[in-house]
Amino acid sequence: MPNDKEKEFVKEIPSKKDNFSDWYTSVVLKAELADYAPVRGCMVIRPYGYKIWENMQSLLDRRFKETGHENAYFPLFIPESFLQKEAEHVKGFSPQVAWVTRGGDEDLTERLAVRPTSEAIICSMYSKWVKSYRDLPVLINQWCNIVRWEKTTRLFLRTTEFLWQEGHTLHRTREEADEEAIKMLNVYVDFVENEMAIPLVYGRKTESEKFPGALHTYSIEALMPDGQALQAGTSHNLGQFFSKAFDIKYLDDDNTEKFPWGTSWGITTRMIGALIMTHGDDKGLRLPPRIAPVQIVIVPILFGKDDDKVIAKAKEIYEVIRKDYRVYLDDRLEYTPGWKFNEWEMRGVPLRVEIGPKDILKEQVVFVPRDGTGKKFIKEAELKDSVGKILIDIQNNLFNSAKQVLRSKISEASTIEEFNKKIGEIPGFIKVFWCGSQQCENELIDKTKTTPRCIPLDQKIKGKCIICGKETETTIYYARAY
Amino acid sequence: MPNDKEKEFVKEIPSKKDNFSDWYTSVVLKAELADYAPVRGCMVIRPYGYKIWENMQSLLDRRFKETGHENAYFPLFIPESFLQKEAEHVKGFSPQVAWVTRGGDEDLTERLAVRPTSEAIICSMYSKWVKSYRDLPVLINQWCNIVRWEKTTRLFLRTTEFLWQEGHTLHRTREEADEEAIKMLNVYVDFVENEMAIPLVYGRKTESEKFPGALHTYSIEALMPDGQALQAGTSHNLGQFFSKAFDIKYLDDDNTEKFPWGTSWGITTRMIGALIMTHGDDKGLRLPPRIAPVQIVIVPILFGKDDDKVIAKAKEIYEVIRKDYRVYLDDRLEYTPGWKFNEWEMRGVPLRVEIGPKDILKEQVVFVPRDGTGKKFIKEAELKDSVGKILIDIQNNLFNSAKQVLRSKISEASTIEEFNKKIGEIPGFIKVFWCGSQQCENELIDKTKTTPRCIPLDQKIKGKCIICGKETETTIYYARAY
Repeated sequence: MPNDKEKEFVKEIPSKKDNFSDWYTSVVLKAELADYAPVRGCMVIRPYGYKIWENMQSLLDRRFKETGHENAYFPLFIPESFLQKEAEHVKGFSPQVAWVTRGGDEDLTERLAVRPTSEAIICSMYSKWVKSYRDLPVLINQWCNIVRWEKTTRLFLRTTEFLWQEGHTLHRTREEADEEAIKMLNVYVDFVENEMAIPLVYGRKTESEKFPGALHTYSIEALMPDGQALQAGTSHNLGQFFSKAFDIKYLDDDNTEKFPWGTSWGITTRMIGALIMTHGDDKGLRLPPRIAPVQIVIVPILFGKDDDKVIAKAKEIYEVIRKDYRVYLDDRLEYTPGWKFNEWEMRGVPLRVEIGPKDILKEQVVFVPRDGTGKKFIKEAELKDSVGKILIDIQNNLFNSAKQVLRSKISEASTIEEFNKKIGEIPGFIKVFWCGSQQCENELIDKTKTTPRCIPLDQKIKGKCIICGKETETTIYYARAY
Repeated sequence: MPNDKEKEFVKEIPSKKDNFSDWYTSVVLKAELADYAPVRGCMVIRPYGYKIWENMQSLLDRRFKETGHENAYFPLFIPESFLQKEAEHVKGFSPQVAWVTRGGDEDLTERLAVRPTSEAIICSMYSKWVKSYRDLPVLINQWCNIVRWEKTTRLFLRTTEFLWQEGHTLHRTREEADEEAIKMLNVYVDFVENEMAIPLVYGRKTESEKFPGALHTYSIEALMPDGQALQAGTSHNLGQFFSKAFDIKYLDDDNTEKFPWGTSWGITTRMIGALIMTHGDDKGLRLPPRIAPVQIVIVPILFGKDDDKVIAKAKEIYEVIRKDYRVYLDDRLEYTPGWKFNEWEMRGVPLRVEIGPKDILKEQVVFVPRDGTGKKFIKEAELKDSVGKILIDIQNNLFNSAKQVLRSKISEASTIEEFNKKIGEIPGFIKVFWCGSQQCENELIDKTKTTPRCIPLDQKIKGKCIICGKETETTIYYARAY
């Protein structure tokens, strides 16, 4: 039976269903993922949260390198005149810029933007480096911090400073650039679905929603349990806009000078917010094994009798599995097993392995997976194999149950009335046919208080635009969004 | 024989001996390690240079984790009032701070420092997290960018923005904090000597040279070929100064409130500058295998006859060694072997493996190690073993030859005259006895135009202070410094 302190530990989190917003903040703080910083809109990513980011980095970085990209580092500061070179770009970002106006003891003659994104500074360097078609493609990525002056902020989801990666590439042709933009969209889909176990819809953004300065923007969109969409990553075909603005020219093999075609693409620490919201429950976090800082926690069940034996056996188990998995042996004596169960459930550790005096007699251990599929008794001899199998199961179970939720929250609508009725009943994605006009988009946004999320790629079905009724092959997802 | 273009490739670098400063800049630019950014005092770390940093990060991070540290991330911005809480600290750093005064469309009521170091922001969080002796020690490290408004800058060595890691720890006792500070000093010595192959002197800084706000500062100091010292990393026992300034208190097991003892320690991208200067030669960079982005380059020698066979054999060799080493197969057809030799020597690749038609007949490959020990013919059957052995030899040879240089440039002096004569003849470290007084330190600095570098730990020999003649057990290294 839990004692009073243990009850209190759980009681402190609001219910996910009844008070989603408070639940989210409580889990972030209590699982020690992040904390509020004493700087407007900024957060501190605590070690447990940062380990999730490190695992994300390592899994993404491997994919970037496998697709031929290299990392580099460009300056934090961007002179104001550089930001202004691409007209749409500066219009899109300047309301969000933090400005350095003083350095040491001097006022600066030109103020410096703290990078809100790095197209401007990176393109200025590319114009120096790229001379010949032999220099193409340029395939560079950067891991760094980004600052955007936000009015309202929430831990991980929207913060003044956040961490991200930004890929910036140059290509000889428009087709190559689009191929790259879609390739990296697919890298993101693969990463988010298979490592983070978050199911997605994805596709192209509408003109009004694309990145300032891009030809096309592609995005991945996850659906949170409150029915709101969360844009989880973007990939842009930048066309020749930045090449022209920054005078990046290469001599092609036909001996004429040309502007290369660019892309950029990014994923941020915001994804950690999506991870928490997608999988968490009333006991706290639930982490997919592939991304979890601790995949397995071993808790020896101590009664003050045979404790030495139990601790020795727990250590033996630890040694068997630590080579292949991220394992923590919680042999602290100052906490009860119940307190430890609560703590590690709060922290979302995928698998708890319990071992007590009775288990030793039966030559077994107890598995308690965090996916809710219930206690399992495992023969000690089968421990190693069973651990591998159950972690795969947990990963799949988390993904499949999230996918079921996503599917249940995608509806279709062919009239505004149907749209509003459906989104009222089941908040989520509403898929509609759309003629592609800005006017119809505006009317739909206005009358549903939702925003266009993305246009799935490779569509072939015909239907009628939800607003004007014109025949079209374009469908698009709408939702309320973070 | 090299053709004209090849000669030109080499000719473009000044001699290291005759024009050290230009040689350094040329190598950085031509090996594509870094480039000047269009922002005052900032640099771009290009992919080849960044890979060195990634290797450094991975080798250091492993050591931090093995010594029990975790990574986290704290905000880039520090409110001015926070910097001011520790009096020495603000005095030391405020002349170098870049200030954000405007965010979005509003002037800030309190300006924000772009972190010149993170003690202030991190300690403000620790005061929230640390309550009990059970919360100690706190062992956190951060990898991030840092900004210090420098008047004169040089690529890697001194830039307005640089990358580093900063460890920030808290302990119950002064002894524990000092143990930690010295433990991390030793981690740095191990890393720099054994991975980067740069020999060091190390020890404690004098009072006047210590970190603003520290009780003690320890440093590692490398000697550059021009006889100037380069401070390559520091570790500070911060005492209770920051705990008191930021009101970090813990309830000890004797039920009284106490201030914990802090440390901080850091190594920066500046180390890459030391790496270049220590090992490079008139052909360019020379990289120790353990840190080199490419450890081995395979160059097929193509004469337009049997080329397919040679390329096939080069690929075979590549497949044999790529699993265990970082290998690049340079099978580009548009460049001559001579051009490739020059390029990879410039980039400092430790081992070149050549394979031509004659070598195939003899079932051999040619090893050309970058340490200058000369061509070796290796039986193909012994390839794998030989690669492993020669990389270890190259690592040792680079370290030993740098160590010989360092030893030859350490002198001792017992009078000012002897000091100035010796440093005039062989610029380097001069070791002197010192009574420990500020007055004698000032006089020595003044009369030699050098600075105190560090006081070796655990000294036992007696001698007379070089200035006042008082008997003392303290020796100290002086040098001109970067």
